[in-house]
Amino acid sequence: MAGNSAASFHPPRRALMGPGPSDVSPRVLGALARPTIGHLDPAFIGLMDEVKALLQFAFQTRNELTLPVSAPGSAGMETCFVNLIEPGNKVIVCQNGVFGGRMKENVVRCGATPVMVIEAWGEPVNLAKVKQAIGAYPDAIALAFVHAETSTGVASDAAALCKLAHNADMLSIVDTVTSVGGIEVAVDAWGADAVYSGTQKCLSCVPGLSPVTFSAKAVERIRDRKTPVQSWFLDLNLVMGYWGGATRRAYHHTAPVNAVYALHESLLMLKEEGLEASWARHRRNHEALKAGLEAMGLSLPVAKTARLPQLNLVAIPAGIDEARVRRELLDQHGLEIGAGLGELAGKVWRIGLMGYGSNETNVRLCLSALESAMLRQGARMEAGAALAEVDRVYGGAR
Amino acid sequence: MAGNSAASFHPPRRALMGPGPSDVSPRVLGALARPTIGHLDPAFIGLMDEVKALLQFAFQTRNELTLPVSAPGSAGMETCFVNLIEPGNKVIVCQNGVFGGRMKENVVRCGATPVMVIEAWGEPVNLAKVKQAIGAYPDAIALAFVHAETSTGVASDAAALCKLAHNADMLSIVDTVTSVGGIEVAVDAWGADAVYSGTQKCLSCVPGLSPVTFSAKAVERIRDRKTPVQSWFLDLNLVMGYWGGATRRAYHHTAPVNAVYALHESLLMLKEEGLEASWARHRRNHEALKAGLEAMGLSLPVAKTARLPQLNLVAIPAGIDEARVRRELLDQHGLEIGAGLGELAGKVWRIGLMGYGSNETNVRLCLSALESAMLRQGARMEAGAALAEVDRVYGGAR
Repeated sequence: MAGNSAASFHPPRRALMGPGPSDVSPRVLGALARPTIGHLDPAFIGLMDEVKALLQFAFQTRNELTLPVSAPGSAGMETCFVNLIEPGNKVIVCQNGVFGGRMKENVVRCGATPVMVIEAWGEPVNLAKVKQAIGAYPDAIALAFVHAETSTGVASDAAALCKLAHNADMLSIVDTVTSVGGIEVAVDAWGADAVYSGTQKCLSCVPGLSPVTFSAKAVERIRDRKTPVQSWFLDLNLVMGYWGGATRRAYHHTAPVNAVYALHESLLMLKEEGLEASWARHRRNHEALKAGLEAMGLSLPVAKTARLPQLNLVAIPAGIDEARVRRELLDQHGLEIGAGLGELAGKVWRIGLMGYGSNETNVRLCLSALESAMLRQGARMEAGAALAEVDRVYGGAR
Repeated sequence: MAGNSAASFHPPRRALMGPGPSDVSPRVLGALARPTIGHLDPAFIGLMDEVKALLQFAFQTRNELTLPVSAPGSAGMETCFVNLIEPGNKVIVCQNGVFGGRMKENVVRCGATPVMVIEAWGEPVNLAKVKQAIGAYPDAIALAFVHAETSTGVASDAAALCKLAHNADMLSIVDTVTSVGGIEVAVDAWGADAVYSGTQKCLSCVPGLSPVTFSAKAVERIRDRKTPVQSWFLDLNLVMGYWGGATRRAYHHTAPVNAVYALHESLLMLKEEGLEASWARHRRNHEALKAGLEAMGLSLPVAKTARLPQLNLVAIPAGIDEARVRRELLDQHGLEIGAGLGELAGKVWRIGLMGYGSNETNVRLCLSALESAMLRQGARMEAGAALAEVDRVYGGAR
């Protein structure tokens, strides 16, 4: 009815160095485009088993209930909250950026009460404050926090936070959307109970799925609920019938078959590289980027001990029109970097080096493009100094 | 941690003639595999506008709030219910198969009360019974029904049902998952208020998105809610900020970028063919399949006036091991047909002729494969009779 003269869409060429999605490997795009088969096809059921094992590898867990939710990361977050939390519950939520705030929203919409532990944006979650909150609210049933805050580029101490929850007999709910594949995520070693992630960050898969994993204690809690899960689509009691270990899989919803092909391929690539090697690569490229940025006189405001190598917060110097810089990077170099979110809007850039996109070529492209855009705005820096620093980090001539 | 020796997944060759997913065109798979760009990239925002216009075309509506939910059809259903229904509401739900039952579950999980209008599986929704329910429960705020029941292959009279709702000042909630593209869906002419569909049926796109459209009256209801929507991920008040008409799109969640490329391409293909031509093609291939099935002595239990051309319910004759037939079709011909769902399990097959998969080659493959599988089980039929009937319908020699 509405007029439309559209033609096939051919995306412009981009280098994705924002907060995600990250550059997707041709291998993953190739897997994505393989012919669709049925979601109950024996061949697809076999693939589901492999995806589950590969997710257990990526999460470093033996959790039986490990699967990709058929929707983006926010739905993975919601899966954790609606399945574990019931009306009237109390949940301690740590907030040091956008995603802790979203966790709070989830708690409220479950008819539960959030107890907030607030930290400044750019700081990690404060363990002492969490301990205090646990002491003040011993009846809270869960502690929720973000491992790697995508809005600030900050890592919090997941092992210590899970331990605090465990010792207080609370469940831990952990956001690892931006961490899996980029820095260590060790679900079993942490003793984490409900963990969700995304596909479009350090796994470099297309956006649209959210891997989740639940401990035996979390599964018990889900089975013992007094009230039904408020979401039919995300109700794990039902989803388990499809993704569970039973030989006969019950139809729940139609899985996004092709996205599962792609996730499988991206997890295979992680497995082939190895977790430690992937983390080391993220660290190395971060070091090169950081050296280059500092040579340009730019500063990384997050404390060194809390910095995420895969997502770099960069302070915007006075006198720079940051939106113009981002527009020029996009228009002239096809390069996407991220804007500040929430209270950091206009104050920082977020430069991602995630998954397949965490490579030397991207580091160099970003530094040279940024240098030229800032020089055009009259910034004072020595042209070429950034790339010289990068050479140093990568070991000189290649 | 878990052992895994997986290799890249290469799906077996399939012809998808079940209840969906249907065969996806190489054009759509090609679009799916184009390089991922950012969900806030100006080029992607432009694509979103085109997808919206193309969905308005497919739904035959001018509704401003028309978009694909970033998750499969069941999430589209849930989007309609959680946004329109509040705790304590009463909703009349028509059930004549699996998906009416799922609607009931959705109503209950909204803290509302379903008033059920039950019809036998294989029958369309009974208008007289609905009229009666509306008279008995004038305080119900909505009437919900399935236009094309995927579990039974039955079409109900959507125009008449929406009119009954409208005259009683109730909102109408309509499932068009299996109808859009296959038979007429006319959202504005019906006066439907909240309509959801799927991508993997007659649009022949990959599974994973759910197109939805809402009337002005439905939008008003969403804006006037007294309670927050129980799902953060599906809250249209928030989703509208990303998909809405504003020039500045607010980040809500990361859209499944590549799936949106694919949906765009599949909608373009529908637009190029034309709605009427697509419906006529579905009818013609259904006529051929039906003629062939009847020549084999098989019967289509749904009354002619209610039959969906895109999903054919076929009664399984006595003495036939139906699971063995399906297994042989899959193993020997790569052909997937659907089993019976719920109370029809073991009693019927569901043969889909949807979207790109609604073609003469699939009709012939299905009939010859079915004939040979049934002959192997000792069925009495004249070999070759089915294809002779098909020749007749398609007009003899091609």
